[in-house]
Amino acid sequence: MNTGTHIGNMKSSGRAVLTDPEAKKILREYGLPMVEETVAKDFEELLIQASAFRYPVVLKAHGTKLTHKTEKGLVRLSLRNEEDLQEAAKQIAASAGSDLEGYLVQPMLSGRREFIMGFVRDTQFGPVVMFGLGGILTEALNDITFRIAPFDESTAEDMINEIRSASLLAKFRGEDEADRKQIIQALVGLARFGVENPEVVEADINPLLVGPDGHVTAVDALVVLGHSRNVVSASGNLGFLDAMLSPKSLAVVGAKRPSSEKKWSDLTSCIVRLGYKGRFYPINPEASEIDGIQAYPDLTSLPEPVDLVIVSVPAPQVPAVLRDCVSSGNKNVHIFTAGFKETGGEEGLKLQRQIEEIAESGGLRVIGPNCMGIFNPKVRIATWAPASMEVGPVAFISQSGGFATDLTRYAGQFGIHFSKVISYGNALTLDSTDFLEYLGRDDETKLIILYLEGVKDGAKLLSLVKEIRDKKPILLMKGGLTASGARTVSSHTGALAGGEHAWNAFFRQTGTIKVTSIEEMTDVTLALLNLPPPQGGRVGVIGTGGGIGVEAADTITRAGLELPALTEGTKRKLAEFIPQAGNFITNPVDAGILFSQLGMMERTLRVLASDPMLDLLVVSIHIDWFYNADQGAQIEKLASYLAGPGREQASGKPFVVSLRRYQTDSGVKHSEEAARQILLKAGIPVYKGLQRTAFALAKMVDYYRFRGGIR
Amino acid sequence: MNTGTHIGNMKSSGRAVLTDPEAKKILREYGLPMVEETVAKDFEELLIQASAFRYPVVLKAHGTKLTHKTEKGLVRLSLRNEEDLQEAAKQIAASAGSDLEGYLVQPMLSGRREFIMGFVRDTQFGPVVMFGLGGILTEALNDITFRIAPFDESTAEDMINEIRSASLLAKFRGEDEADRKQIIQALVGLARFGVENPEVVEADINPLLVGPDGHVTAVDALVVLGHSRNVVSASGNLGFLDAMLSPKSLAVVGAKRPSSEKKWSDLTSCIVRLGYKGRFYPINPEASEIDGIQAYPDLTSLPEPVDLVIVSVPAPQVPAVLRDCVSSGNKNVHIFTAGFKETGGEEGLKLQRQIEEIAESGGLRVIGPNCMGIFNPKVRIATWAPASMEVGPVAFISQSGGFATDLTRYAGQFGIHFSKVISYGNALTLDSTDFLEYLGRDDETKLIILYLEGVKDGAKLLSLVKEIRDKKPILLMKGGLTASGARTVSSHTGALAGGEHAWNAFFRQTGTIKVTSIEEMTDVTLALLNLPPPQGGRVGVIGTGGGIGVEAADTITRAGLELPALTEGTKRKLAEFIPQAGNFITNPVDAGILFSQLGMMERTLRVLASDPMLDLLVVSIHIDWFYNADQGAQIEKLASYLAGPGREQASGKPFVVSLRRYQTDSGVKHSEEAARQILLKAGIPVYKGLQRTAFALAKMVDYYRFRGGIR
Repeated sequence: MNTGTHIGNMKSSGRAVLTDPEAKKILREYGLPMVEETVAKDFEELLIQASAFRYPVVLKAHGTKLTHKTEKGLVRLSLRNEEDLQEAAKQIAASAGSDLEGYLVQPMLSGRREFIMGFVRDTQFGPVVMFGLGGILTEALNDITFRIAPFDESTAEDMINEIRSASLLAKFRGEDEADRKQIIQALVGLARFGVENPEVVEADINPLLVGPDGHVTAVDALVVLGHSRNVVSASGNLGFLDAMLSPKSLAVVGAKRPSSEKKWSDLTSCIVRLGYKGRFYPINPEASEIDGIQAYPDLTSLPEPVDLVIVSVPAPQVPAVLRDCVSSGNKNVHIFTAGFKETGGEEGLKLQRQIEEIAESGGLRVIGPNCMGIFNPKVRIATWAPASMEVGPVAFISQSGGFATDLTRYAGQFGIHFSKVISYGNALTLDSTDFLEYLGRDDETKLIILYLEGVKDGAKLLSLVKEIRDKKPILLMKGGLTASGARTVSSHTGALAGGEHAWNAFFRQTGTIKVTSIEEMTDVTLALLNLPPPQGGRVGVIGTGGGIGVEAADTITRAGLELPALTEGTKRKLAEFIPQAGNFITNPVDAGILFSQLGMMERTLRVLASDPMLDLLVVSIHIDWFYNADQGAQIEKLASYLAGPGREQASGKPFVVSLRRYQTDSGVKHSEEAARQILLKAGIPVYKGLQRTAFALAKMVDYYRFRGGIR
Repeated sequence: MNTGTHIGNMKSSGRAVLTDPEAKKILREYGLPMVEETVAKDFEELLIQASAFRYPVVLKAHGTKLTHKTEKGLVRLSLRNEEDLQEAAKQIAASAGSDLEGYLVQPMLSGRREFIMGFVRDTQFGPVVMFGLGGILTEALNDITFRIAPFDESTAEDMINEIRSASLLAKFRGEDEADRKQIIQALVGLARFGVENPEVVEADINPLLVGPDGHVTAVDALVVLGHSRNVVSASGNLGFLDAMLSPKSLAVVGAKRPSSEKKWSDLTSCIVRLGYKGRFYPINPEASEIDGIQAYPDLTSLPEPVDLVIVSVPAPQVPAVLRDCVSSGNKNVHIFTAGFKETGGEEGLKLQRQIEEIAESGGLRVIGPNCMGIFNPKVRIATWAPASMEVGPVAFISQSGGFATDLTRYAGQFGIHFSKVISYGNALTLDSTDFLEYLGRDDETKLIILYLEGVKDGAKLLSLVKEIRDKKPILLMKGGLTASGARTVSSHTGALAGGEHAWNAFFRQTGTIKVTSIEEMTDVTLALLNLPPPQGGRVGVIGTGGGIGVEAADTITRAGLELPALTEGTKRKLAEFIPQAGNFITNPVDAGILFSQLGMMERTLRVLASDPMLDLLVVSIHIDWFYNADQGAQIEKLASYLAGPGREQASGKPFVVSLRRYQTDSGVKHSEEAARQILLKAGIPVYKGLQRTAFALAKMVDYYRFRGGIR
């Protein structure tokens, strides 16, 4: 089967839309349940064929120039017999005029349940397949879902279950259950059709009709041809990244003598003061030394080719430096400088084209331009001052330099440290997918965070993430609400797609964890690094009750977790030692007394930990209340207890602490910070408030659910 | 028209559901476009009536015991002539058996557009009316909206416009635009029907059919009768609240000698140490003085009846104290003590019933039990230590004591101060509506915040809020996801209602500002107190670009505000003084240089302020970046500039500052705090991060939009 060529031929003949029979024929080959249809080239042939028909039938005009047939009266339904048929054919011939090339006949199908499927070709991801409710309500209700092609049966099944109107597929008002296998096969086939036929930019199956007997038929099809960008990434030989990300030698072109006041604010001084472990060559034609280190006038005068050249000269000088890189055999480059295509200005675009050409022809591997580059604490290379130079298990691939500095400065206070951080800006030659592929295999990296505004090869991103995610959780913040989506309008699918649909499909089908801020990146990472996998999403809370307990329940439920009622058994066990008055043996367990009597807290934790109906435990501490009672002594005692024996009581069940504080005097802040440090040091995640707690736990549960094996 | 009595009679005859003709007759009287229908009591009468029919018709079985008629084959559609009719009647008679009381005949209506309307009687709000998409997809798609009855035409119109499938009401696939007036009239009539007939607990109009000519017909109706709680609040004479909330004399029953370590943690010491301005009588039979103030053994020994008695003795002693209140003529009581119905335990429920009886028979006005009571800085009464005793324009009515303490401690740091705060707990006699009514008229109160878990008289809450909201913004945090909603299931409406629907309707139809945390209360209040009303929701941002700019755009858009592109004119004006390299003349204006050259910042602010396409201005400052450059000197300079000349440049346009900080060392924190204080003192709202900024501005815009007169 070589439909790609087939379609290619048709396209070269100048048509932008396949005719009905052409579209149906091809889609049938891909396993779609297209309606039977006969083409009669004229009135006589139609009458001859008529004897074989089972009435009622539908008659349509056939012709490559005929569009919007329904509106033009070129479709006639429910023709009951030969007489009806003849009359309809006459009227169609009159309406169509000289564009008529023949007639299409198909059985008149009945069925109240209409669906739609289709795909659009997204500029980043390629074919993005849609499934949803069809019929008169398609646009109004927008009850649709998307997945990036290719995908398998189980993904197709997820799509079917995801729409709100999925209930129509069950036995429904006297009609049989729909044949889901047919729909699944159609979706998988449509995805394959999109992947194998790059000339097709949009396709619609509308309606996909479920008959009273549950049989599924695709009644109509639209296939739109056009030009599409076909991105194929460079080969996967990424060995050079060993040297680039962990350079043993390093040159900085445009190295400056640090001014005394701005000690940490420039690149060169960061490299020197953070104690870069390799051989460092500052390059500055106007200095013989920088900070006591011998300087060189240019790359060609270096004693050796280096593992990484950092370019930090004004944008107009960058092309010359890149030419030097090529001529001196320095292939690994990080361009720090901004002022290229990101400016949107003519000058910047011109410079970007220039450096792109030099890099390509010279075989340069470029991180940047317009980015912070690399932070690798193991070799002590950083172009900014992070919170800590400690080596940790987290990698961050960030299109934004601001986020790279922000996250490395913020996460440190939670004990989160990094293996490698790469800020790669305009992605001249190296893109997020290159770094992701490398870090997926990097033994030092256990969890990967991404900040992306776009990606060149979405299909590669998809397959990499699928490969990596079960071993290493992947968090993604996607910047730019409207960056994606091919804005076509000739199909329903095209009109319904766009915006965040393709990226939402990406999140759904890969189990990538969606975050939208530095705080969320940190909170979820803290949970994933420190907690064992939970058995499910049912949360038991020990904490303050009343309104605050109600808020806890609302917050946890809204985050997508459950706050189940305690079982009678658990309640009985708690009632053995928790006095009734002023305490509530419910979930949240509201027991101020627990916090002042650590023995009770211990017993409560043990009871909840042994309750098989609870999967996660949260201890919620109202810092102000404890502080006001005794100026914080009790808070630290409680934190120490939780960090030690408390942790034991939880006996392996994931367990976090949520702190509530609204007083702002320094005493209470200090007290909170002391408790935080005690807990974090023991590897117990601590969150500010229940909203952040619930979000982090919900994302963790989602991650493990996607991997499978938990409730 | 006395349908209430009519329905009452039918109910007393033992039926729980009105018959078709009964339901239709009553609803027709309320202006609903019920289908014409004839009842024939037997086969002969049917045949006699038949001569008057216009075919095709629908025939249904009639009988009080007949339900689920479609499923039982008791409805026959599309009967084309007398023959069809006779045949159908025979079959129906056979299927219905002895339950058949007659036949219903109605015209066979055509129309592809089906809607549903109905109401359920909510325990708090009374009739909550639903409108939405009908037909086979009603439950699957849940495309519905709710409003609390009674309401007027404009609210009904909002309902119609709010559902996703509203587009079906326009000209649609060859069918005429629906007669919206008929639908509006039907909704308003249905609401009135609910209000005037308390015996009706649920009603459904399903389907409400829109014909090809746009004419609207209610084809079927279900009216369910039952018992409903009819709350009518006590009269509105709330003069006693003057004394209760601003007491000139005060007794505390159960006053304790403060222990030295816990100076502020008990009620008596708060009252003494915060400097209560009235006459204070501690009551404790075992002490002759408390903290140097003469103590009394009981209420009856006081030299005068007091404006307020605070009861702070263990729960089992409370009934006796209340009896003392009655006998000593002390009618205004705040019961601090917990341990009543909120425990859920038998003992607590029993005590609650006891005190309820004493309060009712003795005419006591009770705040509580189980609450913190009153904070009124003007008379310096507080039972907890708030952040400040300064008098301000904000009132807080909180069912939760925890929230009352949290908010008063938190908001002070933003310069937000209070007129009155009332924590009222279990609402024994006084409920939120009493306090709201009072504060609506209180000249010292300009903005009201509510935390509610429930309300006794929802209709009163609704009408009070409508009356107050245009003069004083009202913020509401509703605790308890599932507290509301009558969980009935005999109608579609009942099955679709419940959960948060009634409360969401409340928010939509009153313009009450929905918040979900102490932080959100504070952030929105800060904007509303300090900013002039904006002209619309279009935001101009001056701040950091790159990924952080992308995040700003995403965040502002997700919050429901607009971030429009700058006009060419504005761009030209900015380009006159902002150099291209490294800056972006777009929205957000990314111009690091602006922050270091205040003259440029000044010109930029002036340009954006004079752009009529921007309604709100945000200056977003990345604290870390400035701090690292010069250890904070520039940050304070910038804050001082914004607080003075910058504010002038904004020339009356609402303008806020958003701070981004991820470094955690004390120097940078101190620098941020200094900037914050400078700005807040000048009345410029300052927020931590763009998410909080965008939320506060969006809620402010929503508020003024609801009041009308802005875009």
